Amino acid sequence: MSDAVSPLAPAQFPSLPPLAGIRLASHACGIRYQGRTDLLVVEMAPGTAVAGVYTRSLTRSAPVDWCRQAQIGGRARVLIVNSGNANAFTGKAGIASVERTVAGAVKTFGCAENEVFVASTGTIGVTLPDDKITAVLDQVKPKLADDCWAEAARAIMTTDTFPKGATRTARIDGITVTINGFAKGAGMIAPDMATMLSYVFTDAALPADLLQTLLSKGVEGSFNAITVDSDTSTSDTLMLFATGQAKHAPVTDPADPRLKDFRAKLFDLLKDLAHQVVKDGEGATKFVEVTVTGAASTRAAKRIALSIANSPLVKTAIAGEDANWGRVVMAVGKSGEKADRDKLSIRIGGIEVAHDGEVVPGYDEAPVTAHMKGSHIVIETDVGVGRSKATVWTCDLTHAYIDINGSYRT
Amino acid sequence: MSDAVSPLAPAQFPSLPPLAGIRLASHACGIRYQGRTDLLVVEMAPGTAVAGVYTRSLTRSAPVDWCRQAQIGGRARVLIVNSGNANAFTGKAGIASVERTVAGAVKTFGCAENEVFVASTGTIGVTLPDDKITAVLDQVKPKLADDCWAEAARAIMTTDTFPKGATRTARIDGITVTINGFAKGAGMIAPDMATMLSYVFTDAALPADLLQTLLSKGVEGSFNAITVDSDTSTSDTLMLFATGQAKHAPVTDPADPRLKDFRAKLFDLLKDLAHQVVKDGEGATKFVEVTVTGAASTRAAKRIALSIANSPLVKTAIAGEDANWGRVVMAVGKSGEKADRDKLSIRIGGIEVAHDGEVVPGYDEAPVTAHMKGSHIVIETDVGVGRSKATVWTCDLTHAYIDINGSYRT
Repeated sequence: MSDAVSPLAPAQFPSLPPLAGIRLASHACGIRYQGRTDLLVVEMAPGTAVAGVYTRSLTRSAPVDWCRQAQIGGRARVLIVNSGNANAFTGKAGIASVERTVAGAVKTFGCAENEVFVASTGTIGVTLPDDKITAVLDQVKPKLADDCWAEAARAIMTTDTFPKGATRTARIDGITVTINGFAKGAGMIAPDMATMLSYVFTDAALPADLLQTLLSKGVEGSFNAITVDSDTSTSDTLMLFATGQAKHAPVTDPADPRLKDFRAKLFDLLKDLAHQVVKDGEGATKFVEVTVTGAASTRAAKRIALSIANSPLVKTAIAGEDANWGRVVMAVGKSGEKADRDKLSIRIGGIEVAHDGEVVPGYDEAPVTAHMKGSHIVIETDVGVGRSKATVWTCDLTHAYIDINGSYRT
Repeated sequence: MSDAVSPLAPAQFPSLPPLAGIRLASHACGIRYQGRTDLLVVEMAPGTAVAGVYTRSLTRSAPVDWCRQAQIGGRARVLIVNSGNANAFTGKAGIASVERTVAGAVKTFGCAENEVFVASTGTIGVTLPDDKITAVLDQVKPKLADDCWAEAARAIMTTDTFPKGATRTARIDGITVTINGFAKGAGMIAPDMATMLSYVFTDAALPADLLQTLLSKGVEGSFNAITVDSDTSTSDTLMLFATGQAKHAPVTDPADPRLKDFRAKLFDLLKDLAHQVVKDGEGATKFVEVTVTGAASTRAAKRIALSIANSPLVKTAIAGEDANWGRVVMAVGKSGEKADRDKLSIRIGGIEVAHDGEVVPGYDEAPVTAHMKGSHIVIETDVGVGRSKATVWTCDLTHAYIDINGSYRT
């Protein structure tokens, strides 16, 4: 692991404004890392509503199990995230760690157990030294502030090379609300099972079930549309908290037209964070956008797009700046979804290179070659059987990925 | 692409004996390669029965479409395979190429159209110069001989670093029969859509439908149980030809006990060839055997095993000689198949490193480390929900894979 920042990183962490009802603090408790923060504590105003989307892995971690259960209550007061240890594949000891951490939060913050949410990211299979967390909660509480979003994003990093954040404002019924979010780790791409974690906060006054509807929908075009290496973490977590401090009129129906702007801005923020995760993919040198059109259904379009985006042959070709459309054809074919070989067309950087299942004779290679040398690669394919489409994002597969993931743990 | 032979290659090509009813010849017709053979012609005795298993890709090549159709007749007289050009994604021109090649074979060998089988492997999207094939068939015919199996295996190589062959003898009803086979190319692993092709021949007297039953069953534990990079070719083809020259009594029922030895030897030969394909995986330095036990069904066991074998994180860890069992847990979790996180156990090189969902405290790391330094890696996992099992084989993911696949086509 080098200290080099991804070449795809944004110039700087965005300026996230204070958000009514949210206070954050980070702390160095020495769980695994030295000389950096590894604990994030977020306190939320009473009445904060919560929604969450979690890994579908069947070997998910104890903290994920906890959050799924606690979320049923619909309320959140405290979020505790540590980096350096994932508390995954730790058996009964892992469950006990979560219970002690939650008990510590209840004691310090005076809230209910099911208002406490926890997450852990880092090495797996090692018992979490939760005493290092619970021992400092009383110290951390006075440090809580409303202006330390960048520090929060940094505290949860593992092998990330830059902190990831985004902010948007939206209007609900004439009132301006804020949405702030941060994220870490490109899914399962990091060594030793690091994890994708993302937390989004808003001062909007929206009930938990409505938040859940929005989040479940929003994740489809963002975090569920990115892939680095097709691997899935045991701990992936995306949560949305709404403090309800904004003074707009109540909105309870997800179809309420007054939600239109909020929904758009939330989805845009989720996509922004998801793209940042891909841009920090291990060894990534190119950001790749794959769009499939002409599919039989949206689900089919997405499966075909992911088949292309997950193909090691496609990803190594992109790393080599090779406009190898043959590998795109192959990936369409192996997806298992309906496609018409003899109507297939492919565009790279907007230039049609294949049409009706054959190479376009004498297509202009110069702009395609120039496009492949850039850092934002666009691949479009029409599979010729329907009208549905989908877009997913990934990165290239380079030597650095092998270096990072092939190294000894010890 | 280097000229280096895979470190996992066998010491030499096995000695394949003549097989009654089969004559082979290779030829250099300059389709793409210079200074090597690129055409294989096999003539089979009248009455030879045929079976085949083909790629499931929906963007399959014109030759595959031809073989699937011709095979319905159940008889084979001529097999023509070229390397250097895959005749895939070539539209109507590709279909016309196949038709002209078949017509050429009919003219030279005086057989029926549907007794001719063709295959092409190499670059895709480029029209096959089939005139180079048809022009030489009359020259090639006199060169046909029964002892040039190694030359046959070499003529169909693309980026393979060694020719792949195997032979077995079996007893059917007291009569000894021979099975010879050769193969090329590790599935979709080669640049520009090279392909897995494998042809198996026997002098046994078995009808086409029985051959098909055997082959469809045999492929499950061999070619359908290997993976190099999870990509699937447009042209993968496995065919089995039986000349019927052996003088055993007729056998027509796949369940006939007289087939027991033949079935075992055929399956063993298929597995041998499939393993050779993996051992020539691009950049491979380790042969990896993944066994899953305790699954809910055989299908589930195989899907979990393939999830492990296809995981870039598992494969890079093996390349780095890292006994990273956490990544195995991850791959089990993402497979989508039932597994009990808290009963999961993992063995590496026969040593239990995880048990009941937790690391085995103080397990002896020395033999595990020594095992990872070897070239045959064995990973076993019990997922704790049933009694079904499956084994699959793969190779590690190394820098050489990126080098080979990330290079420019031109």
